[in-house]
Amino acid sequence: MGRLIARRPVVRVGPAGSRSRPDSIAVEEPLELRVDGKPLAVTMRTPGHDVELAHGFLHTEGVIGSVDDIHDARYCDSRDDEGRNTYNVLDLGLTPGVPAPVTGVERNFYTTSSCGVCGKASLDAVRTKTRHSPATDDVTIRYDVLATLPDALRARQQVFDRTGGLHAAGLFTPTGELLVVREDVGRHNAVDKVVGWALLNGRIPARGLILIVSGRTSFELAQKAVMAGIPILGAVSAPSSLAIDLAAESGLTLAGFIRNGNLNLYSRPERVNVEAAEVRTTYRA
Amino acid sequence: MGRLIARRPVVRVGPAGSRSRPDSIAVEEPLELRVDGKPLAVTMRTPGHDVELAHGFLHTEGVIGSVDDIHDARYCDSRDDEGRNTYNVLDLGLTPGVPAPVTGVERNFYTTSSCGVCGKASLDAVRTKTRHSPATDDVTIRYDVLATLPDALRARQQVFDRTGGLHAAGLFTPTGELLVVREDVGRHNAVDKVVGWALLNGRIPARGLILIVSGRTSFELAQKAVMAGIPILGAVSAPSSLAIDLAAESGLTLAGFIRNGNLNLYSRPERVNVEAAEVRTTYRA
Repeated sequence: MGRLIARRPVVRVGPAGSRSRPDSIAVEEPLELRVDGKPLAVTMRTPGHDVELAHGFLHTEGVIGSVDDIHDARYCDSRDDEGRNTYNVLDLGLTPGVPAPVTGVERNFYTTSSCGVCGKASLDAVRTKTRHSPATDDVTIRYDVLATLPDALRARQQVFDRTGGLHAAGLFTPTGELLVVREDVGRHNAVDKVVGWALLNGRIPARGLILIVSGRTSFELAQKAVMAGIPILGAVSAPSSLAIDLAAESGLTLAGFIRNGNLNLYSRPERVNVEAAEVRTTYRA
Repeated sequence: MGRLIARRPVVRVGPAGSRSRPDSIAVEEPLELRVDGKPLAVTMRTPGHDVELAHGFLHTEGVIGSVDDIHDARYCDSRDDEGRNTYNVLDLGLTPGVPAPVTGVERNFYTTSSCGVCGKASLDAVRTKTRHSPATDDVTIRYDVLATLPDALRARQQVFDRTGGLHAAGLFTPTGELLVVREDVGRHNAVDKVVGWALLNGRIPARGLILIVSGRTSFELAQKAVMAGIPILGAVSAPSSLAIDLAAESGLTLAGFIRNGNLNLYSRPERVNVEAAEVRTTYRA
């Protein structure tokens, strides 16, 4: 696990009194991403799979379309007080001809829009950037398979089991096969790592695949799914209004509150096959 | 509630079949913060208490020290497709003499540090910025009072009750009195709104107060507590390594996993009075 888990002393207090012991803690460290030597973003992340994270971030921000757009990735010479490389600065070299990213506070939002700062402008910005719309993907998944995926994700969260402190994202096939799971203190980072894995393994656009996340669904997470061409996004908890609006506009199937054999579908529900599951239930009875 | 809750259609699927109905959803909208007309940051937030959010953000980033540093706050003329003000661009005018904020991707991190990008540099950046160290605050709270605060916060989460989709933050006194609670799709925004409320109500530095958050504790949330001079930060879930390190270095009492009458103390445990609670337990038996 290396840099994923740290040990810290903790005083555990309960009705029976208090006791001190060391505890396992999820590691959080800054990562600065640079493109051709120029700082682009700093994120607080759990170390590990940084190259995947960088690829996923640059893809879901519309900077790169394929793995060929990255020429090389290397950790810069960032050193701590004791002269050791921190491995917290990653420089991505773009392939000649790939345009450099636009930087600035408005990067994610409304520069491409005719209107002011509003939800609709945020949706428009994604539409102008995406290279892989999920709208025409005709994949279907059985409702009862989709309902089991959060538990399958949870079962593979190795670091969460020891720390209780990590978000997770995983990519599944329609039959419920788990292709990849990544954990991070930041849920957007967990998704970036999964998308980066897909890009590095020739699975982008991610046609026919299902992305499952451990928490809630924000606009940002729905954006990442749309940008990667993922047709189905499922979450354990609630979506925001803007996540639903982006899903509806982009042709993404958005599922939420996947718990205890129930789930909510907020957009494109026809990709989830309820009838097949019901037939099976009948046969079982 | 106005813009806090939206209605969206949902297909609810379970073992008994599926049915369609409208559902209550937590609203997410972009907010652009400007300082003296210049864009500083864009955050995805739940509309409402935007002026508090702006004050809390600017204070926890070290831009302003008191409410007097802000001369005025007004919504800019940002209009949607139908010509209506989006109320999503807020411009803060600094009082003459207050230095403008530094912008750029490295803003939060290591510009003030001698070393590279690393956890320690992040801690150093907070130390150089803070105006209100909680280190010397001699407040204490009974363990059994602290253990009840997450439930008290949860009981006041009006929007969460209807949407299941919001983070919350609340400020309490050591006797368990709730001073303010704020909800937001972004947990950092919920804390910024609470800190902004405190700043606008003459409670900064927030000596003797307890901040409770509904989720996990990251470096960013611990930073906001330290910057506001809050001596005790408690959370329902796990802290990250860097949150613990910042708390230990800054003299912040960090509590986590506050559940079912138990809690973990990661730093400065002497502010939590375990003995008083035990005596009361004995008297009750």
